[in-house]
Amino acid sequence: MPVAPEPGPAIILVEPQLGENIGMVARAMANFGLADLRLVKPRDGWPSDKARAAASRADHVIDAVRLFDSVEAAVADLTFVLATTARPRDSFKPVRGPETAAGELRARIGAGQPAGILFGRERFGLSNEEVGLADEIVTFPVDPAFASLNIAQAVLLMSYAWRMAGTEDATKPRFAAPEAPAAQKADLHRLFDHLESSLAKAGYFHPPEKREVFVQNLRTMLTKAGFSEPEVRTLRGVIKAFDFAIARGEGEK
Amino acid sequence: MPVAPEPGPAIILVEPQLGENIGMVARAMANFGLADLRLVKPRDGWPSDKARAAASRADHVIDAVRLFDSVEAAVADLTFVLATTARPRDSFKPVRGPETAAGELRARIGAGQPAGILFGRERFGLSNEEVGLADEIVTFPVDPAFASLNIAQAVLLMSYAWRMAGTEDATKPRFAAPEAPAAQKADLHRLFDHLESSLAKAGYFHPPEKREVFVQNLRTMLTKAGFSEPEVRTLRGVIKAFDFAIARGEGEK
Repeated sequence: MPVAPEPGPAIILVEPQLGENIGMVARAMANFGLADLRLVKPRDGWPSDKARAAASRADHVIDAVRLFDSVEAAVADLTFVLATTARPRDSFKPVRGPETAAGELRARIGAGQPAGILFGRERFGLSNEEVGLADEIVTFPVDPAFASLNIAQAVLLMSYAWRMAGTEDATKPRFAAPEAPAAQKADLHRLFDHLESSLAKAGYFHPPEKREVFVQNLRTMLTKAGFSEPEVRTLRGVIKAFDFAIARGEGEK
Repeated sequence: MPVAPEPGPAIILVEPQLGENIGMVARAMANFGLADLRLVKPRDGWPSDKARAAASRADHVIDAVRLFDSVEAAVADLTFVLATTARPRDSFKPVRGPETAAGELRARIGAGQPAGILFGRERFGLSNEEVGLADEIVTFPVDPAFASLNIAQAVLLMSYAWRMAGTEDATKPRFAAPEAPAAQKADLHRLFDHLESSLAKAGYFHPPEKREVFVQNLRTMLTKAGFSEPEVRTLRGVIKAFDFAIARGEGEK
């Protein structure tokens, strides 16, 4: 079970047509910690089995859905509303990208002012009148030649932008690669010595006057690789295996 | 019709199961200007009517799809590969968030180095071996309690992050491009094959049931090292020297 979510923007779907889309919206919200889903006159009614199935266990979002008869009613308790649109609108409202819009939502919600985002119908989005109910417009930086985003994708992007706006270091991942201790230079130098002496026995340094160049190249690349201590040990094992095989003369058997 | 897209990362789906998902991936790519979609053994074959229908007119992406028999083949011409994962992995690969990863893709692709992103199967993602073929791991800042993203959503977020990374050139820190041309994955895979077959002959893989683990460790460290094409050639030369020495049985003389 997710922990009680931090306050986030309400996601308001205006006359959504397909239950599957509502479910995918719920799932996208849950992915990024949002939980307040509001529906204005869903075409196929509510509750919806299709929505629950498509939500893939984002049941806490589905269970908390609230139904409204109008956009006005759905935004009544909010203090700040964004409208998502794909097309430019003849309006004097500010138009934001997702990152700026998410930053603004963070500032307002952080100050205790409830906010929400309107998403339009699958087929024709929001009416001009509905956009008129919003404070600002959000649009996505899509390829103008291929601009149609489905609702769940639009909600996913806004939920992601919301999440990113809240992380102090937005690019910090949830988990980090385990840190292997870096090899000490002495280990690295023993690796150089071992490799070079094995290669000398194997006849690698030919012609002999080029030996210095070959050695420098090998040392440069092994240093640049930044191997950890266990990795250096693995490489020593690899060279040792070749040493033994040469000593045994396996190829002659 | 979209204009000829700028170069972008290849999107590689590994054994995708549903044609619908492939289509939604194509649509998400088209939204943000990506066009190079590669499929590794799609379960239901290719072409797919379901994929085309779900792509909602991203036909240019669907028409350009390329099919591959293995992940190795699908990444052979690339120099830098990211693997998307939802779960932490026991590997020493760097783990990035989408923005950092997208910035890195921009830097490399901008320097003329082809790059791609691996996405796993709907049911269980990428195998450890497949992740082992990548240079770095990308993960999404999802709610740990509700972490499952469907493939199309994961592709949408990476495509969006790619697009955003391109709109903020001026304010983003630039990554230094590597000096020597990075090795193509096909070169790196040939290095793996060569090293592993030489080590097998040398009796390195002992006990045999540990072979898989040894191989994974070697591949991970050689991938992590980020060797250039001339460096990979040097390593091939090193192994060849050992091969010849074993064949000659120098130690016996």
